[in-house]
Amino acid sequence: MDLWFSEGKHQSVDFSIKVNQQLYSQKSAFQQIDIFESDVFGRFLSLDGEVMMTEKDEFIYHEMMVHVPMSVHPDVKTVLVIGGGDGGVVRELVKYNSIALIDVVEIDELVVRACEAFLPATAASFQDARVHLTFQDGLRFIRPLYDRYDLIIVDGTDPNGLGEVLFTKEFYGNCYKALRPEGILINQHESPFYQQDAIAVQKIHRKLTASFPISLVYQAHVPSYPSGHWLFGFSSKRYHPLADFKDSEGADRQLATRYYNRPLHKGAFALPTYVKELLDYVEDK
Amino acid sequence: MDLWFSEGKHQSVDFSIKVNQQLYSQKSAFQQIDIFESDVFGRFLSLDGEVMMTEKDEFIYHEMMVHVPMSVHPDVKTVLVIGGGDGGVVRELVKYNSIALIDVVEIDELVVRACEAFLPATAASFQDARVHLTFQDGLRFIRPLYDRYDLIIVDGTDPNGLGEVLFTKEFYGNCYKALRPEGILINQHESPFYQQDAIAVQKIHRKLTASFPISLVYQAHVPSYPSGHWLFGFSSKRYHPLADFKDSEGADRQLATRYYNRPLHKGAFALPTYVKELLDYVEDK
Repeated sequence: MDLWFSEGKHQSVDFSIKVNQQLYSQKSAFQQIDIFESDVFGRFLSLDGEVMMTEKDEFIYHEMMVHVPMSVHPDVKTVLVIGGGDGGVVRELVKYNSIALIDVVEIDELVVRACEAFLPATAASFQDARVHLTFQDGLRFIRPLYDRYDLIIVDGTDPNGLGEVLFTKEFYGNCYKALRPEGILINQHESPFYQQDAIAVQKIHRKLTASFPISLVYQAHVPSYPSGHWLFGFSSKRYHPLADFKDSEGADRQLATRYYNRPLHKGAFALPTYVKELLDYVEDK
Repeated sequence: MDLWFSEGKHQSVDFSIKVNQQLYSQKSAFQQIDIFESDVFGRFLSLDGEVMMTEKDEFIYHEMMVHVPMSVHPDVKTVLVIGGGDGGVVRELVKYNSIALIDVVEIDELVVRACEAFLPATAASFQDARVHLTFQDGLRFIRPLYDRYDLIIVDGTDPNGLGEVLFTKEFYGNCYKALRPEGILINQHESPFYQQDAIAVQKIHRKLTASFPISLVYQAHVPSYPSGHWLFGFSSKRYHPLADFKDSEGADRQLATRYYNRPLHKGAFALPTYVKELLDYVEDK
């Protein structure tokens, strides 16, 4: 028997993973949740049929979401993670002793429970005493908050699905308000390659540049995501991701990473010309 | 009707492109040559069933093969291209007025003729008066040559196929010999992500570091290649790709590019930790 997982997101391109078995399948109040086991990617989570993370390459995405801002802001004490139900972002955050509080707001409790059961390498860090889990809509959670966090990381699904609200101008405005005067917002920014994704990149960037004085985009190679070329948004009230980058290796910064390193921090912001043009096009609008 | 091109190179992962029609299909003395037309990737060439180039993303691969060394070596006059039957590398080279001679050695004349007929956007530059095409085995061509080229670009197929001879220590030694004292060798270096490809990366790097005093690896996002994370080798007798990089924008260097730019030149050498570890492991051997 051959069992293949096929994403089929782009109607004319397909990325498929041969699967040994389906470990979990449940329809929650919000979405279809599946966890599979494969030889090449290990176990992987899909939400509504789209790959969210695989054991083989989740370190790339999660390290880039966390260690880039943590190497710029000199004193992060309070963090808000919106989405991130697989726990990968939290796992990277708890490596920093300086962080005192990590609020995680995930809309779908079933995602967390499924990951705790089947993906313990990412989900185990929810047990850290500094982590406070809330199962709620991210926008509703953040609306009443002012001047609360040093860092907000938005790790949601794609803008065409359940995560849509996390890509609105209203949401980004509320993030700005909930951040301290030196706060940083990191969000997953989709891929620039396929045309329909590139349009999403432009929409996100337009809203972020309208909401924050500093909004730069950086990139990584995430093979299990469409095109493998993934972007992240670095939006900030004060710190610049390169000018304020702490290039020296302080004792507390010597974290074990498998993708992120200091030269790569700078390299990740050196975007291809066609991506720069995509972004420049909307910066003036 | 649905027609899908499926590479199936990695037995447990598949990347497929929906095809409108097959434009060309021929078995040459060396390999199976196919050209297809698709909505998302435009026309694309496959050799023995593996995607070699697509109209949508070939600019990434070809720009990175050419403009990186051309921005380091201050005076390239003679170039040898081995493989490169689609003409993409040559198209980027002829943009430089300073180059006087481009020898192209492609083993399979039928690849060139098929690309001239169906992929004119890459193959048209073979008509440039500085280009000399020879249909011959690359190793046999280079064996008798000494002190001839400023730049050699090896644009062959994968090391497990027809291009195998272009990944041997004997071949790299002959490239060294055929290069001038300030010469540079660029080769496609496979992908670090899937295990079988990572082993190929290590084998290539071990041989290159044994053959050249300077051997660095750089990367690009090429979505149509396996994993989308592609590596290139920069091997050199004298010039260092970063220390000798001409960062200023000379008048003759203002080439129109869609991927390559000067900040990206430096960023491309900032490799992820896991890739550095792959390479470091074999550098001492």
